[in-house]
Amino acid sequence: MSLIVQKYGGSSVADAARIRNVAWRIATTVDRGDQVVVVVSAMGDTTDELLNLAHQINDQPDPRELDVLMSTGEVVSSTLLTMALESMGYEAISLSGAQAGIKTDAAYRRARILKVETKRVEKELKKGNIVIVAGFQGITEEMDVTTLGRGGSDTTAVALAASLGAEVCQIYTDVEGVYTADPRLVPEARPLAEIGYEEMLELASHGARVMHPRAVELGELFNIPLLVASSFTENPGTLIHGGVSMEVRNKVRSIAHDLDVAKITVVGVPDRPGIAAAIFDPLARAGVSVDTIVQNASIENITDLTFTVMKNDLAEAMRVVEPIAKSIGARECVGDSTLGKVSIVGTGMQNTPGFAARMFSALSEKGINIQLITTSEIRITCIIDEARVGEAVRTLHRAFQLEAEE
Amino acid sequence: MSLIVQKYGGSSVADAARIRNVAWRIATTVDRGDQVVVVVSAMGDTTDELLNLAHQINDQPDPRELDVLMSTGEVVSSTLLTMALESMGYEAISLSGAQAGIKTDAAYRRARILKVETKRVEKELKKGNIVIVAGFQGITEEMDVTTLGRGGSDTTAVALAASLGAEVCQIYTDVEGVYTADPRLVPEARPLAEIGYEEMLELASHGARVMHPRAVELGELFNIPLLVASSFTENPGTLIHGGVSMEVRNKVRSIAHDLDVAKITVVGVPDRPGIAAAIFDPLARAGVSVDTIVQNASIENITDLTFTVMKNDLAEAMRVVEPIAKSIGARECVGDSTLGKVSIVGTGMQNTPGFAARMFSALSEKGINIQLITTSEIRITCIIDEARVGEAVRTLHRAFQLEAEE
Repeated sequence: MSLIVQKYGGSSVADAARIRNVAWRIATTVDRGDQVVVVVSAMGDTTDELLNLAHQINDQPDPRELDVLMSTGEVVSSTLLTMALESMGYEAISLSGAQAGIKTDAAYRRARILKVETKRVEKELKKGNIVIVAGFQGITEEMDVTTLGRGGSDTTAVALAASLGAEVCQIYTDVEGVYTADPRLVPEARPLAEIGYEEMLELASHGARVMHPRAVELGELFNIPLLVASSFTENPGTLIHGGVSMEVRNKVRSIAHDLDVAKITVVGVPDRPGIAAAIFDPLARAGVSVDTIVQNASIENITDLTFTVMKNDLAEAMRVVEPIAKSIGARECVGDSTLGKVSIVGTGMQNTPGFAARMFSALSEKGINIQLITTSEIRITCIIDEARVGEAVRTLHRAFQLEAEE
Repeated sequence: MSLIVQKYGGSSVADAARIRNVAWRIATTVDRGDQVVVVVSAMGDTTDELLNLAHQINDQPDPRELDVLMSTGEVVSSTLLTMALESMGYEAISLSGAQAGIKTDAAYRRARILKVETKRVEKELKKGNIVIVAGFQGITEEMDVTTLGRGGSDTTAVALAASLGAEVCQIYTDVEGVYTADPRLVPEARPLAEIGYEEMLELASHGARVMHPRAVELGELFNIPLLVASSFTENPGTLIHGGVSMEVRNKVRSIAHDLDVAKITVVGVPDRPGIAAAIFDPLARAGVSVDTIVQNASIENITDLTFTVMKNDLAEAMRVVEPIAKSIGARECVGDSTLGKVSIVGTGMQNTPGFAARMFSALSEKGINIQLITTSEIRITCIIDEARVGEAVRTLHRAFQLEAEE
């Protein structure tokens, strides 16, 4: 008998029929003889509806109160899923984040899990119950409800899996797993049977929305295999784990892309120490998250400094940077919000040369201009015109033969 | 500085505009220098919507799970009301029943409050917070959420008022207070300025829906004055308390009526010991609540036994009683669901004769036939044809001059 943690996302429990479908899937696992702990998100658009209600009443709602409000969404779906299992004759019990022992700090809206006290969950498992835990939420030492922010329910599931010593944490969602590229852009894209934690982290951080990097990191830290699969089909999904063989398979695993890229270039910056700090400290204080930073080689002590931000942050970033650029004697400050990025990711790349060259020439053959390049050991990212992103992803998918079965 | 507990019902917080209105009323109390603890019900139809969702999934939902599900409704309204106060610049905090220390037994759907641990509420009051408590809910020793059943939020409010030593518990609702009769039946009915606990209990138990008897009983037990008033107007409402003068005012205070009355008569019952038990034990086991029981004087050892039940229970009661009636040799069993009851209530009646006679003759002058009579020390109830109830209430209101200011 193994212990399995399953997580079902909001679209998987959006209405009564889907909740029954999820209950049936859980029952199938239980019938195989496994113990199951389930983490569930709020039904469909519940979270947005609650947020909307809050904003009708207060345009800057208190984070503590928002967290209490939001947390009700997952409590509702956890009880309904429990009732569905009971109507099929299974023993089940719902637990709130607090009851399931998810202890967090008091950073409302984006709380971090400090520890998981598994006593109650273990007691219910021992009684023969399927345990249905409300995701996305925890409780502080002061017994105040918190929510975990983005990727919260996935993080609840992985944290429970780690604390309970589960064999696997299965993340059920509305996609078939981790693809070689976004299938909406690349018709021949296919789901990967497996992928490494590091690769998944790079994909998640560079535009693949299937899992939040935070939950992947936690899985890697505790070495919990994560299965990402669809709750609507019987397809096997993608196993994210640490034991992926590095030698025998295609070295590029997947193409990620992200359309949410804007660029600011500060032109004609005097090349002297302290300039970068003068620009990026105020941006950080303004809450603007800077992604890629590139500084061209200096010619006659004058350089161009380029960095990227999310599109929504462009106006604010320009507002912060323009007066600074003027004060340090830069020539001008140019913003561009028509960009996107494409990345190739694969652990196998790190000891094999030639991937960058192949990527650049594939793009150049199509006349796609590369504006910026950044790399990690297992990733190469090009920033290009957003209008060419789809074509670039298809081109790279073909260039690295990702359509072929491994 | 006094401590005041206020309770707002579901219709008072049915949407964002009404929640802001309630926040404004609370703020007015705070501005007068009082400390305020607020108990709030779920918004409008939330409870029914959640129940409906549960029944879509499981036609006999588990009581524990239902309670967790239901409890989210009051948590939602408590956070929204808190946000509304904060948007007006007031310090406030929402607490769930569990956080507010409402400890109950584990009788899901109708839990009883065992004690209130006021530590957290007192701490928040000391910090200068308005404390907004989710009504209708509590928590067991095992940290499982319960709901309190009918009259639950009123009961939460009165229990908090008693435990905190509040000066008054104000119950805000969608009516102007306790009336001399239902104003939908009697245009000249008027709200009472004050009424005694016992009178209110009799009214509440005989058809007046303004407060649940359970909360009134708790108020009486701890001698907490209860103000019932409208959350939509500035009218003073009715104060329910123990110090009501018995001598100086109209001895009949209010006319209650109830249309939910059905009658069963077992005709030709042999008059011997054990017959009543043979009938009423099985009814109690079937969950049928019997109200009035009347047994006619026995003639030649044959008697008629009549009792009333709620209309919804008539079919089940007949199903239970008919075979018993046959087995004990009764002649027949007759059900009638076209009944209602009218009651006159007033503490002053107990030492003054003539109220019953005046009631009966007023009804008889209108040709209204009285089928059954029951009395307590401070109440006289007549069961009559349901079609005549409105007329009976108007007749009695006039007969006892309740339209006159006291």
